[in-house]
Amino acid sequence: MAKDLDDVLARAVEVVGPPNVVTDAEVVAPYTTDWTGRFHGTTPAVVRPGTTGEVAAVLALCNAARVPVVPQGGNTGLVGGGVPRAHELVLSLQRLRHLDAVDARAGQVTAQAGVTIGAVQSLARAAGWDYGVDLAARDSATVGGTIATNAGGVRVLRYGPTRRQVVGYEAVLADGRVLRRLDGLEKDNTGYDLGGLLCGSEGTLAIVTAARLRLVARPSHTVVALLAFDRVDDALDAVGESRRCVDTLQAIEFFVRGGLDLVCETFSIPKPFAADHDAYVLLEAAAATDPTPALAACADRLADLADVAVATEPERREALWRYREAHTEAINTLGPPHKLDVTLPPATMSTFLARVPDVVAGVAPRARTFLFGHAGDGNVHVNVTGVDPDDDRVTDAVLRFVVELHGSISAEHGIGTAKRPWVHLTRTREELDVFRAIKRALDPRGILNPNVLLPADR
Amino acid sequence: MAKDLDDVLARAVEVVGPPNVVTDAEVVAPYTTDWTGRFHGTTPAVVRPGTTGEVAAVLALCNAARVPVVPQGGNTGLVGGGVPRAHELVLSLQRLRHLDAVDARAGQVTAQAGVTIGAVQSLARAAGWDYGVDLAARDSATVGGTIATNAGGVRVLRYGPTRRQVVGYEAVLADGRVLRRLDGLEKDNTGYDLGGLLCGSEGTLAIVTAARLRLVARPSHTVVALLAFDRVDDALDAVGESRRCVDTLQAIEFFVRGGLDLVCETFSIPKPFAADHDAYVLLEAAAATDPTPALAACADRLADLADVAVATEPERREALWRYREAHTEAINTLGPPHKLDVTLPPATMSTFLARVPDVVAGVAPRARTFLFGHAGDGNVHVNVTGVDPDDDRVTDAVLRFVVELHGSISAEHGIGTAKRPWVHLTRTREELDVFRAIKRALDPRGILNPNVLLPADR
Repeated sequence: MAKDLDDVLARAVEVVGPPNVVTDAEVVAPYTTDWTGRFHGTTPAVVRPGTTGEVAAVLALCNAARVPVVPQGGNTGLVGGGVPRAHELVLSLQRLRHLDAVDARAGQVTAQAGVTIGAVQSLARAAGWDYGVDLAARDSATVGGTIATNAGGVRVLRYGPTRRQVVGYEAVLADGRVLRRLDGLEKDNTGYDLGGLLCGSEGTLAIVTAARLRLVARPSHTVVALLAFDRVDDALDAVGESRRCVDTLQAIEFFVRGGLDLVCETFSIPKPFAADHDAYVLLEAAAATDPTPALAACADRLADLADVAVATEPERREALWRYREAHTEAINTLGPPHKLDVTLPPATMSTFLARVPDVVAGVAPRARTFLFGHAGDGNVHVNVTGVDPDDDRVTDAVLRFVVELHGSISAEHGIGTAKRPWVHLTRTREELDVFRAIKRALDPRGILNPNVLLPADR
Repeated sequence: MAKDLDDVLARAVEVVGPPNVVTDAEVVAPYTTDWTGRFHGTTPAVVRPGTTGEVAAVLALCNAARVPVVPQGGNTGLVGGGVPRAHELVLSLQRLRHLDAVDARAGQVTAQAGVTIGAVQSLARAAGWDYGVDLAARDSATVGGTIATNAGGVRVLRYGPTRRQVVGYEAVLADGRVLRRLDGLEKDNTGYDLGGLLCGSEGTLAIVTAARLRLVARPSHTVVALLAFDRVDDALDAVGESRRCVDTLQAIEFFVRGGLDLVCETFSIPKPFAADHDAYVLLEAAAATDPTPALAACADRLADLADVAVATEPERREALWRYREAHTEAINTLGPPHKLDVTLPPATMSTFLARVPDVVAGVAPRARTFLFGHAGDGNVHVNVTGVDPDDDRVTDAVLRFVVELHGSISAEHGIGTAKRPWVHLTRTREELDVFRAIKRALDPRGILNPNVLLPADR
């Protein structure tokens, strides 16, 4: 193997050129630790191909010699999926940076894997469009990485996750064969949806080298409403009702009394309403035609609404958003929290919110649990302070409770290496067997990111 | 095999009961011919399971005995994908008719495979929602069949094809194992997207027995605009520009002078504008807030617009729609047309529209070619009169031209058995090899709809 590896690296140098097979410890370091500093690894080398052909040639070498490979984009993942934790070769896609002009008739753009989400957004906006995915790591996260993880972000409610933006793909299989369907066909029922399958596959099936991305119209009117309720269940009913009545919603956020109190105390912000309430729903609608009447009519229909504030001007909109967005910062002042990213189905959301603090207290009696998130798609951020941010007992207790309530143990971050010990809880043996069968079909030697997503071999 | 088959049928009777293993020629007949009467087959029997467990038991029997199976829903497909053309067993999913109540908090509903699209729509509408897929065969087409074919219909532009409505699935593998993920998790990054993979797989990977479907808000205001242009290219530019500026479009339709003339002559309808124009684009926007201002502003921005009519009242909207919708009926008066359902990327649409009549004339000099369709997603209906509706020379010439222009040879109907001879033109060897590898991984004995989608074995 060591000799094979040396041979692979020597031949990789011929393919990508000496500067792009990096073994210098200092240069390698940023590729072997994730940006949060939680996940570390080691690698024999970082290989940085500059073309799809070079990716194909390098993978063919690795496959022939059975050298495992971890593909890496902007290294902004949150579950250690792009870090070589078992001394895999790192294949960085960062040099694949070509970004075509916007195709204005199609409302699409073709981008190579290493282009950042921020670059796609800037290009789209300059042409009067926008890109449907937005997330905090936009200036580092790449097209390839967000496809591998099916990244969500703040506008999933409106535009869906990354999978829904991908209208074409170019990808290299483990053995170096190239799949390419980049023509941007909005309707194309001529075979299996390989592009969709690659989204969220965490680099285990093929390495995405380029994508054809769908752009979205840029709404010109935005309105925000903050709704207060005296019962959590009334707030959850309002979530469904608002989705039914307002077709231009781009956010439905949720928080509760405890989190709001902390935010207002921490930052000396006045409370939003004269009275205190138990649950809050923040709605944002945006459209080419002012959506305020629809939002106001929706609020009028909510029998259990305790109070409401509506804002159309940017400053006032931001003030309402601040109650929700300042949660993260306010919680951080209590010490680094243990964060979990889960989805609950609406049917069990209420039970989850009511009981998860006790579930956490069962394993960490001194912990404090904060709950907020994207109610529109059932995505709850569980933030636990007073425990180690990597405390596996808390992770285990919360994820088991999520599974018991038929939720997802990873809403948008993925499985990676971090959540791998729990994936068998949320997926049946039949599902995992099918995952493995698909993995073997596309990567029979198992060289592509072999230590993520699927449970360790039984 | 015959003895094995007799044994399978005898044991299937034990599973589903004698009335549900049908061999009587008269009862079998409607299952062996498609609704258009173009595709015929024969079958040893039609098996009609009433539960997912029965589907699983029957498939396990068939798999053990290597008896090939054609799954069938409402039998409304257009490419012979549900007809037993090689004497396969027919597995009808029509008895799986359970439809849950609408989950109002989630905006979702769970439906078994045999529920019709019309039934889903009715239930959704009664609860104040709607279903994103609508098509002419709504009262026969089923949830299972529309998933297997990734059915599109008239609102793909707004809501996407069936794949985008599926938020959970239950499916039975060839060997009888059941996959079930019906909890309706809008965000769930915990493995491969099997639900999306099954959409459009034409029953070749697993048999869908139920689905969790996303519902959509029901817009209360609708506006239609008919735009006229003197150059086809100006019309195509307007398609992109309208998508950029109006975020609530639910249709962008296209037709040209020849088709409009035929419609107006055939039905004695006055022309829409005083002058004749070369190309027409019909836009329909619908939203909770009146989208007329956005549509009007968009029309104002189109420098090359020759004329425009805007309608908000139902009668006047229908009158504008009639110019587009009457195309099919008007063309039928010339004799049954040869119909092709293709997608072109915007980059080559103009070339296709200009040259395809000559391409057709090259193989059928007396033919007349009509072009219209869903311009918003590049979907062109090519209707050719004066030739046999199944004339393979016309099919071959048009599909080859589509492939040359990087389009799709099947926008929404699928490959089935009808387009199987052409699928190798539009998919590379690498793609087809991956399709086959996935097929083998999920259905190693090849019993599930073995004669559709993939090219016949080389």
